[in-house]
Amino acid sequence: MAADLDETLVFQPRLDAQGLIPAIVTDAGDGRVLMFAHMNEEALRLTRATGLAHFWSRSRQTLWKKGETSGETLRVVSILTDCDQDVLQLIVRPEGRGAACHTGRRSCFYRRLEGDSLTLVDDLRLFDPAKTY
Amino acid sequence: MAADLDETLVFQPRLDAQGLIPAIVTDAGDGRVLMFAHMNEEALRLTRATGLAHFWSRSRQTLWKKGETSGETLRVVSILTDCDQDVLQLIVRPEGRGAACHTGRRSCFYRRLEGDSLTLVDDLRLFDPAKTY
Repeated sequence: MAADLDETLVFQPRLDAQGLIPAIVTDAGDGRVLMFAHMNEEALRLTRATGLAHFWSRSRQTLWKKGETSGETLRVVSILTDCDQDVLQLIVRPEGRGAACHTGRRSCFYRRLEGDSLTLVDDLRLFDPAKTY
Repeated sequence: MAADLDETLVFQPRLDAQGLIPAIVTDAGDGRVLMFAHMNEEALRLTRATGLAHFWSRSRQTLWKKGETSGETLRVVSILTDCDQDVLQLIVRPEGRGAACHTGRRSCFYRRLEGDSLTLVDDLRLFDPAKTY
């Protein structure tokens, strides 16, 4: 089965036991990883139908149109799948102010491990989260 | 708690109920997403101690040094964490032949969704998987 999944051109995303598939979101401009979230079948369907990224919030247990509250929608340019079709990569053009992270930063990945602690590698806030959420 | 996790410089990775944290692996050269896997505490410890990526295989239920069989080790340049510290990004320099994917391709993300089916966006094989595994 694994070899089939590797080489097939049939799109058959494999959802986990909770009906979810992880999605890595990268910027179409420079390839930077912006965020990571999960999709269920409906989030994937809506993403494909509207061209805007939708996810499933595991903490709130709700379908979630990215940017619905903040305006930081993500326009999907391409969807890639990995070799065994249990992870997706969404290549997007950020809209709004270009801050995919709820902290107001462009990316959720703004801290790097240095020794035993973290260092900020990006502290530019494109919006004030206190005024947005 | 969420706001603390967002801004703290204390590294406190949040493992899930299975003791795992997802890791997105990107190429230090051009930022391309190469693969996606999970780490447990020991995989993270070994990765930090050796500078080579280690993961936890959920299918085999074993610790896994990436490249142990294939020679396709991944030298870790940086480790980033996301805003709520439940996802890691490993920025790596691929060693060996530079094929992070077990199919012999540079990246596991070599197919793009076009309409309802997949299109190969990268079919260059850097090794023959039949001879490697």
